[in-house]
Amino acid sequence: MSAAELSLWFDFASTYSYPSVMTAEARAAARGLRLRWRPVLLGPIFAAQGWRDSPFNLYPAKGRYMWRDLERICATEGLPWRQPEIFPAHSLLAARVSVAGRETPWLGDFVRGVFRAQFADGSDIAKPETLAAVLAEIGAGGEALEAAASEPVKQTLRAEVAEAQRLGLFGAPSFTVGEELFWGHDRMAAALDWAGR
Amino acid sequence: MSAAELSLWFDFASTYSYPSVMTAEARAAARGLRLRWRPVLLGPIFAAQGWRDSPFNLYPAKGRYMWRDLERICATEGLPWRQPEIFPAHSLLAARVSVAGRETPWLGDFVRGVFRAQFADGSDIAKPETLAAVLAEIGAGGEALEAAASEPVKQTLRAEVAEAQRLGLFGAPSFTVGEELFWGHDRMAAALDWAGR
Repeated sequence: MSAAELSLWFDFASTYSYPSVMTAEARAAARGLRLRWRPVLLGPIFAAQGWRDSPFNLYPAKGRYMWRDLERICATEGLPWRQPEIFPAHSLLAARVSVAGRETPWLGDFVRGVFRAQFADGSDIAKPETLAAVLAEIGAGGEALEAAASEPVKQTLRAEVAEAQRLGLFGAPSFTVGEELFWGHDRMAAALDWAGR
Repeated sequence: MSAAELSLWFDFASTYSYPSVMTAEARAAARGLRLRWRPVLLGPIFAAQGWRDSPFNLYPAKGRYMWRDLERICATEGLPWRQPEIFPAHSLLAARVSVAGRETPWLGDFVRGVFRAQFADGSDIAKPETLAAVLAEIGAGGEALEAAASEPVKQTLRAEVAEAQRLGLFGAPSFTVGEELFWGHDRMAAALDWAGR
């Protein structure tokens, strides 16, 4: 029997995705579950709700709360935290590199490396050199960065966004187990429980 | 030294407030904390964000998810659950009765009784007879229902909404410990930890 699978849907610009991304693979492995990384773009998903920007920018009370909440969560979970200067970051290239590298053994390290670069080190993840540095650090070649602009990668990412919408996803991080959807970093425990049933 | 205090801000129409309201007093007491009930109206708070209805009605994907999520949460926490026919309920009268009864020993029982009437029994909490039945069931007189329309009660409720906004509240349930704000049923544990520090 193969291990049950939990999908983690995230956007590289998503603040609450940071603590999920940094901890999900270890927590899934501890329960014998397989984690599937599902990078998506919230832009088209938000646009479908009528939002042309992050809701944290559109609704200032929500935004102020989120920054404080993230700081507390990272303190509780022992994660380094620095509020990025640009929010939301332009996450398209990082998403495409992840799609290009989706069959490689370094995918998890890359995802965590990019989140760390943004939310711990304050780097701009829109820049190819930031992503190249992460790839170099984890010992991956630059092929994925070159493949990021290829048509199959673009199409796969578009298909993943469509699949996210079909599953009812409206924010990130989200978790799915089959058709069952869980939204938010605070739902990771419930999603792990569901996957392990 | 008096016990540290945790405020629970809620609207009687708020779905996620249901599991918080049903469990908060016992969880606070177990840690030697005092729970302060803070009924408010989300209407003016949402209006300040530009929402003329519940975000769960304005954003259908969010709404669909919320109903499923609530069902799962109630199953996990062992709470009876029935999706109300009217959403959001008209919660003004229940809020005013709570304000009128804020110095009584039955306040907690009343709040829980109204949430149970709505989310377990499917009653319409906008009706005075629903609230009268809850008051009778907990052995409280009908005075609070009569006092609900009084000017001091209305003014106190308005002042509480203003205080909630000053604290940065934008949804319910929310918890505050002094000026520290926690939003959502899933933040109750963090709020209890904060109050107990």
